[in-house]
Amino acid sequence: MIRAAVVGATGYTGAELGRLLAAHPEAELVALVGHSTAGEPVAEVLPSLRGLVEGEVRAYDAATIAEEADAVFCALPHGASAPKVAELRGAGLRVFDLSADFRLSDLDVYRRWYGEHGAPDLFGRAAYGLPELHREAIRGADLVAVPGCFPTASVLPVAPLLREGLVEVEGPIVVDAKTGASGAGRAAKPRTHLPETAEGIRAYAIAGRHRHTPEIEQELSRLADAEVRVIFSPHLVPMTRGILATVYLRPKAGADAARCVEAARAFYEGSPSVHVLDADGNPDTLWVRGSNRAHLSYTADERSGWIVAQGAIDNLVKGAAGQAVQCLNLRFGLDEGTGLRQPATWP
Amino acid sequence: MIRAAVVGATGYTGAELGRLLAAHPEAELVALVGHSTAGEPVAEVLPSLRGLVEGEVRAYDAATIAEEADAVFCALPHGASAPKVAELRGAGLRVFDLSADFRLSDLDVYRRWYGEHGAPDLFGRAAYGLPELHREAIRGADLVAVPGCFPTASVLPVAPLLREGLVEVEGPIVVDAKTGASGAGRAAKPRTHLPETAEGIRAYAIAGRHRHTPEIEQELSRLADAEVRVIFSPHLVPMTRGILATVYLRPKAGADAARCVEAARAFYEGSPSVHVLDADGNPDTLWVRGSNRAHLSYTADERSGWIVAQGAIDNLVKGAAGQAVQCLNLRFGLDEGTGLRQPATWP
Amino acid sequence: MIRAAVVGATGYTGAELGRLLAAHPEAELVALVGHSTAGEPVAEVLPSLRGLVEGEVRAYDAATIAEEADAVFCALPHGASAPKVAELRGAGLRVFDLSADFRLSDLDVYRRWYGEHGAPDLFGRAAYGLPELHREAIRGADLVAVPGCFPTASVLPVAPLLREGLVEVEGPIVVDAKTGASGAGRAAKPRTHLPETAEGIRAYAIAGRHRHTPEIEQELSRLADAEVRVIFSPHLVPMTRGILATVYLRPKAGADAARCVEAARAFYEGSPSVHVLDADGNPDTLWVRGSNRAHLSYTADERSGWIVAQGAIDNLVKGAAGQAVQCLNLRFGLDEGTGLRQPATWP
Amino acid sequence: MIRAAVVGATGYTGAELGRLLAAHPEAELVALVGHSTAGEPVAEVLPSLRGLVEGEVRAYDAATIAEEADAVFCALPHGASAPKVAELRGAGLRVFDLSADFRLSDLDVYRRWYGEHGAPDLFGRAAYGLPELHREAIRGADLVAVPGCFPTASVLPVAPLLREGLVEVEGPIVVDAKTGASGAGRAAKPRTHLPETAEGIRAYAIAGRHRHTPEIEQELSRLADAEVRVIFSPHLVPMTRGILATVYLRPKAGADAARCVEAARAFYEGSPSVHVLDADGNPDTLWVRGSNRAHLSYTADERSGWIVAQGAIDNLVKGAAGQAVQCLNLRFGLDEGTGLRQPATWP
Repeated sequence: MIRAAVVGATGYTGAELGRLLAAHPEAELVALVGHSTAGEPVAEVLPSLRGLVEGEVRAYDAATIAEEADAVFCALPHGASAPKVAELRGAGLRVFDLSADFRLSDLDVYRRWYGEHGAPDLFGRAAYGLPELHREAIRGADLVAVPGCFPTASVLPVAPLLREGLVEVEGPIVVDAKTGASGAGRAAKPRTHLPETAEGIRAYAIAGRHRHTPEIEQELSRLADAEVRVIFSPHLVPMTRGILATVYLRPKAGADAARCVEAARAFYEGSPSVHVLDADGNPDTLWVRGSNRAHLSYTADERSGWIVAQGAIDNLVKGAAGQAVQCLNLRFGLDEGTGLRQPATWP
Repeated sequence: MIRAAVVGATGYTGAELGRLLAAHPEAELVALVGHSTAGEPVAEVLPSLRGLVEGEVRAYDAATIAEEADAVFCALPHGASAPKVAELRGAGLRVFDLSADFRLSDLDVYRRWYGEHGAPDLFGRAAYGLPELHREAIRGADLVAVPGCFPTASVLPVAPLLREGLVEVEGPIVVDAKTGASGAGRAAKPRTHLPETAEGIRAYAIAGRHRHTPEIEQELSRLADAEVRVIFSPHLVPMTRGILATVYLRPKAGADAARCVEAARAFYEGSPSVHVLDADGNPDTLWVRGSNRAHLSYTADERSGWIVAQGAIDNLVKGAAGQAVQCLNLRFGLDEGTGLRQPATWP
Repeated sequence: MIRAAVVGATGYTGAELGRLLAAHPEAELVALVGHSTAGEPVAEVLPSLRGLVEGEVRAYDAATIAEEADAVFCALPHGASAPKVAELRGAGLRVFDLSADFRLSDLDVYRRWYGEHGAPDLFGRAAYGLPELHREAIRGADLVAVPGCFPTASVLPVAPLLREGLVEVEGPIVVDAKTGASGAGRAAKPRTHLPETAEGIRAYAIAGRHRHTPEIEQELSRLADAEVRVIFSPHLVPMTRGILATVYLRPKAGADAARCVEAARAFYEGSPSVHVLDADGNPDTLWVRGSNRAHLSYTADERSGWIVAQGAIDNLVKGAAGQAVQCLNLRFGLDEGTGLRQPATWP
Repeated sequence: MIRAAVVGATGYTGAELGRLLAAHPEAELVALVGHSTAGEPVAEVLPSLRGLVEGEVRAYDAATIAEEADAVFCALPHGASAPKVAELRGAGLRVFDLSADFRLSDLDVYRRWYGEHGAPDLFGRAAYGLPELHREAIRGADLVAVPGCFPTASVLPVAPLLREGLVEVEGPIVVDAKTGASGAGRAAKPRTHLPETAEGIRAYAIAGRHRHTPEIEQELSRLADAEVRVIFSPHLVPMTRGILATVYLRPKAGADAARCVEAARAFYEGSPSVHVLDADGNPDTLWVRGSNRAHLSYTADERSGWIVAQGAIDNLVKGAAGQAVQCLNLRFGLDEGTGLRQPATWP
């Protein structure tokens, strides 16, 4: 039994990790660690875990965690995460970091988007935790940087097309993304206040202003073996969970929807979390809500030939907690889908 | 391994049974049986089961089901269910019926609310599938009538108070219930059309006009050993899942909130699905969304002393599919909570 | 032309007053006054008023307001409102106060629920601004205390029944109320954070713990000429606007639904904002969303005879800004419905 | 006073026309005409008009309408509309048709997307009712084809850029549109059934499969004086009202966001319905909900220079009923904004 702790447990990712580990046959949750909520009953802080996780939210202490756990999920804000990750690694724990602190490979890029790094010695030494692209690296890594929710939804549909050379890499790739409000985290803010959110849609941080932009470009560039540029535009949708990325790509000759579907199915053969719809399908984030699944689809514009690729995930599961567990499975030699096969809670 | 089939599988209950059985360690889903969708791929009909349940929706044939399955969940509309239940019982299957056809004990009452009964010989021979109240009967029953969603949410908070004699049974008990739209089923209707539902709340079938009224009264009267009358008023809330029943009760002397909490905790001792909040708590249906849990609470009105009891469930899980699996567990000698302990998908 | 200013203008009530005054043929908005947003463009603070109200939010100065305006709507929090109201009255303005500071008639009751009063000399000298009940008093008042949203929705359906003696006044009256999230105001709070609100329903401050309780009792007691007690239980519904009050009442002999409808139609004869549905109708808050209307209905429980009375309003219009304008109309000798006849924005 | 009738009045457009005409100082609603609901009380069919529009929905009769009305809004489905429009024109009425039947200028294109035309003699003789682009034509037209909701939201932000030559016209223009569910009409359908819509987002009819595609291309091509191709991809958002079009455009040299804002402000000078936000703003459909306004914005992608243009409208107002009234104003010599200045019902 893999003993796992969660640091920064009192946000939505903590609740999801608690839920997923409860259903995991080979891993168990041994501690939920928080800061401002330390000492409060778990049932009060994470109401869904009432009756499942007894006791209180614990205060952070790396040594204690190392005694009780083999692995730790670190769900702290970027910036705050890096020093804690360094401590937890120093205490011998395998760390699955859900912040942005170890996702990028270029420290200058990190600094430009996030400021100074809190553990520069560790920077660049994590595996990027998108299992479908970095399975082997994750199996051997003691530090895994679990990807952001937007990069997961955006990279998955595009990866097979770049790998197979089905689309152009020159000229920007347009990624129009739509997310539910839980991606903004648990803290109440005006932009997620229900009266100003429930009956409207709006973009934010569009056109390259969102911090997930460099992460998407990094992964797409790796796949294309060339510098890829995206125009990334997220939109806030009046719902709690789900991300839909709609990606507009210029095809190379012969790349129609059927060819894209074929390439994607080959690429994701053996990946339990990814399902490729038939050509011209339209995935619905509701179909994956609460699950670790990604639904992908490909449609060709009849006249221009452009490819519209779509990826749908639950931002808190395949975009965060579920993907972290998927990485843990790989790192500990388990089947990647262990404990993660449950379908969406639909409708 | 208990082999289970679902008849009438292509509604929301079918999707939920597929989800719950996928996570069940001792039961497996062997067939999804539908009528209008027979022959269609399961992945098209129930999109959340894509990648989990292969193959097609099957046409109904009692003999074939009996060969492949030990138990069948029957999720047909009332009226249509009874004759099929009779056939499936005749074929030797244990049947868990989610319709209203076998929930009532008085055939005249059934006829008044639903019309002629389709299998009167079987009427009155089912166990009422509310495990917290009828555990022993369910263990021995070959036909279980799984309760309605409103009766589950309404009876659970009131049961301990009636059993312990904490509240008056004379004078009607007011049950003001609020439900998400999935309770109306999968068929698109004007009253669940998003534009006319998403930004409004309204009552329907209030003041004793809803068919769940006699079922609530039957169970409360059994508990009180006296005729109990309820004024039952359901409201449609702009959300997908969840029922909150707010019940107004006149206390007997000495019955304050703390006493009610104490009685409820004693009553539900050993019931894995029921959690009783501390006095004056307010359960949120979101806290149980996607789970088989019920959260109950008790508050006293300061001046009048009246007790406000609340029950929150997910109408599709503890109010339907999950409760049916809970009954199957009991019938097949398993721990009641097998496969049902997963917490809510919160937020 | 009546010149009106709004103090405390940067919340939802301010936006609604801006909207309603823009459509008002006899009144005009001359100033929006705020504190933390003073100096910011109105178009940034209240985005719906872009292109309609030029200029900036103004800082508070009673003398300046008195120069420019005849009347002022005061939309400050309770406690903060009273001293400002006293100043504005002192400067000669007619004041329509939307806070709770002048709604109650008993200073001790005020203190118990809200603490010390900020202008005790003025306490008890306001007209209670529910036009359908206090039309004459409002016509002659220089200070009008505009009622709370819950009291408006709760009192309107019950008033005719008490006035006509159709229901018992002994024993508590159960008021089960459901509100949209805008009633909580503009400040972002955990309890209105979309992810924890959008897919759940919960009660709060039930059983006499909500500050609108004494206001409801005050008005019902006036009508009954006897002390009336309510059990008031509000619920938060995942929508932006709307209140539905479902009220459970014990009838006196002969009081069926038809008789209640008849009494209500007589009572509200000539009231342009109130519509009484036919017996057994169920009002939907969506039908009044954005309008100053109240829809009322009456249903009898078949067996017990109890009356279920319902009232549906938009909490920001008939429950706040619209009602304030209705009072202004009366005070300035206009037809009560001037500028307020526009229907709901449906769907 | 302009006397106006509505044919096909019992959908959402009918309700909105009723609401807007009630607030219009120079026009009045004289008849609501329906087919399946003829003879039913208006208050039952369009619940928001209770107390505002007395009487019943009328059966269709062109001669009667011509006696009572000067103008008619025709809100019938495409295909059904053309023959009725021909009759109403024949009876001498000015017709504002909200269907697609007279929007296109090329009959072959119409046939490809909609089938045979029901009044080919009239085809091509309507003014395209987007006032900001065709003001003069509308002033002189007896038949106005009111644009679709998606074309309105998509064309408004792009028009100034094409007119000023700020963006390339070669290569497709990507239009990623997001709409609320009321755009699907009043008939209940599975795709707008709340349980399958409220907590998910999905695309539909993407990549040139939606019937509004040729209408968008027609208008953009007119503006560019060159053939413009769009990749149009609509998405269904879990809300009732609102369209946000996010448009991705390749700039010509010198075309940054500030230049686009400047061009748009010049282009829409004197247009009361259009507001251009400052550079890098993000409009929210909630800010225009219930109003006839369009909010436009322009942002440049820092590295690629591409322009992201956005347009936000209420699909039922500026995308349908409000725009039709705007056309009526022009046709009858009124100021274009008469009766249409009211702001959004926000929040």
